[in-house]
Amino acid sequence: MNKQLKLAKRPVGMPDADTWILESNPAPTLAEGQVLIQQHYISLDPAMRGWLNDTKSYIPPVGIGEVMRAGSIGQVVAANNHPLYQVGDFLSGNGGVQQFVATDGRGWFKVDPDLASLPTYIGTLGMPGQTAYHGILNVGKIKAGETVVVSGAAGAVGSIVGQIAKIKGCKVVGIAGGPKNIAYILDELGFDGAIDYKNEDVRAGLKRECPEGIDVYFDNVGGEILDIALSRLRLHARIVICGAISQYNNTTPVKGPSNYMSLLVNRATMQGMVVFDYTKDYGTAARQMAIWMAEGKLKTREDVYEGIENFYETFLRLFSGDKMGKLVLKVI
Amino acid sequence: MNKQLKLAKRPVGMPDADTWILESNPAPTLAEGQVLIQQHYISLDPAMRGWLNDTKSYIPPVGIGEVMRAGSIGQVVAANNHPLYQVGDFLSGNGGVQQFVATDGRGWFKVDPDLASLPTYIGTLGMPGQTAYHGILNVGKIKAGETVVVSGAAGAVGSIVGQIAKIKGCKVVGIAGGPKNIAYILDELGFDGAIDYKNEDVRAGLKRECPEGIDVYFDNVGGEILDIALSRLRLHARIVICGAISQYNNTTPVKGPSNYMSLLVNRATMQGMVVFDYTKDYGTAARQMAIWMAEGKLKTREDVYEGIENFYETFLRLFSGDKMGKLVLKVI
Repeated sequence: MNKQLKLAKRPVGMPDADTWILESNPAPTLAEGQVLIQQHYISLDPAMRGWLNDTKSYIPPVGIGEVMRAGSIGQVVAANNHPLYQVGDFLSGNGGVQQFVATDGRGWFKVDPDLASLPTYIGTLGMPGQTAYHGILNVGKIKAGETVVVSGAAGAVGSIVGQIAKIKGCKVVGIAGGPKNIAYILDELGFDGAIDYKNEDVRAGLKRECPEGIDVYFDNVGGEILDIALSRLRLHARIVICGAISQYNNTTPVKGPSNYMSLLVNRATMQGMVVFDYTKDYGTAARQMAIWMAEGKLKTREDVYEGIENFYETFLRLFSGDKMGKLVLKVI
Repeated sequence: MNKQLKLAKRPVGMPDADTWILESNPAPTLAEGQVLIQQHYISLDPAMRGWLNDTKSYIPPVGIGEVMRAGSIGQVVAANNHPLYQVGDFLSGNGGVQQFVATDGRGWFKVDPDLASLPTYIGTLGMPGQTAYHGILNVGKIKAGETVVVSGAAGAVGSIVGQIAKIKGCKVVGIAGGPKNIAYILDELGFDGAIDYKNEDVRAGLKRECPEGIDVYFDNVGGEILDIALSRLRLHARIVICGAISQYNNTTPVKGPSNYMSLLVNRATMQGMVVFDYTKDYGTAARQMAIWMAEGKLKTREDVYEGIENFYETFLRLFSGDKMGKLVLKVI
């Protein structure tokens, strides 16, 4: 049998337990040229919240009654004359929140479980790591000696953004929530400074940590923190708009950045990014990040929960911040 | 005697008649190496409102008791061994709102009154024209065939932005207020489309005029119109932040653009500009615009009022929109 989590209704504000429904259905049968993947891990990402809204975006919304979209990694357990993949291969792709998926392999790629753990393949070597890599290098265009600030700094994307900026010779300040996350980015990841948005004034914190202002701000959160960062830009600063997790569950309009005229005063740029634009460079980025990991320069941490039936409770941790590093659900 | 308009107090919201005070003082005497300029025309620009606020910006605020800052043009009526300029020369610079100014000539440049009218030198060939030229070409990076939208389209900057975009082969839609301004940009300037923000719904207007969306939005106004433009961006769109006249007299916080996440969805860029960064290219731009004017491709219009004692009433026209083209005050 195949446990599948399907979208039951469109949430208004924060999703509740009835947003999805768990079904048990027969495992799919294979057509010619398909493989059957038994999924091991599901990736939980803030972007999932956006996929629930029936609005024009960079990707169509998940339909009512459809399996919830999710990045995933699993193993081929059956194959029907597939030209590339055979039983035993590990593949990563967008398998959705379910235990088995039949596919012709398009959108999936093979990974070597001896080189990195399966959760790492959907974290630092997957979408969050790719987002961080291309966002900070290709959009943020960081240069050695610059001051880089990243919000969501203990999260799957932010923790990689900050470490890459360190590798490139920047001064890095992270904004994160709670003493455990602050200790993580300072002591384990080696950030130069940190601001605990749950326990201190972010405006005062940025003034303390970045007395000369911000060259690059990588934004995962939006809202008040984006506005404060805008007020401390240096000349020719760049803001990378990667996400706005503080606004995803709004029932009122998104809070626009009141200080956006700082872009004019400082001749600064605010640019949005979507990781899917960089697919042709995923290989290069993954190889570079794997080298940094092997050299001990890039640390990665996955927070793994178990059981497809616990999807909803685990999903909520994305927004409460009650997690350490990349959030992953084991579904096998 | 030298009539001088000085800043009397810092306004909150829209300036009132007591914001400035008019004084009559003896004309300045000349030190060695100075010239005395009798001013003919003063430039009135929305940026003046920002110069009244005691906040960190791209230029220090005008001090209480200081002559109000303004671009200007005038004629040398006395010279004390100046190395470059002599009596009779016409000079343009930042002479402020006063009738006479003594200067060593730094920040001033000589103009030929036979090639263009004096008001044109402080309009299209001065700061507003330079802002339009560098903003739409160097920041907006327009390409032939793109759809360009400009707000404040009948104003000193917007009217030039739109005409340059037309010259470069773009489709141009202007947002302006009132039937006279709409007729001006459509019939005289040759814009492809227009939206009258005072008499129609801007959202519906943009949908009608730009059914396939916006490639470049040149923003002079901020507020609601910026937000609506954000909602209609095409992939890889650019927004040039040049001004936010709708917000300059706010007594409440600036309205931030609620739809800024459209930058992410559309991989778009919002970039601020200040014309002073392009001083080394002013000459090139002025020559090019003078050629376009001579060819009849670039039309310019100044709305000239008279009398330094009418500064306040004339200034208000910047915000009511009750003007046609570049607003200029004759002070001789």
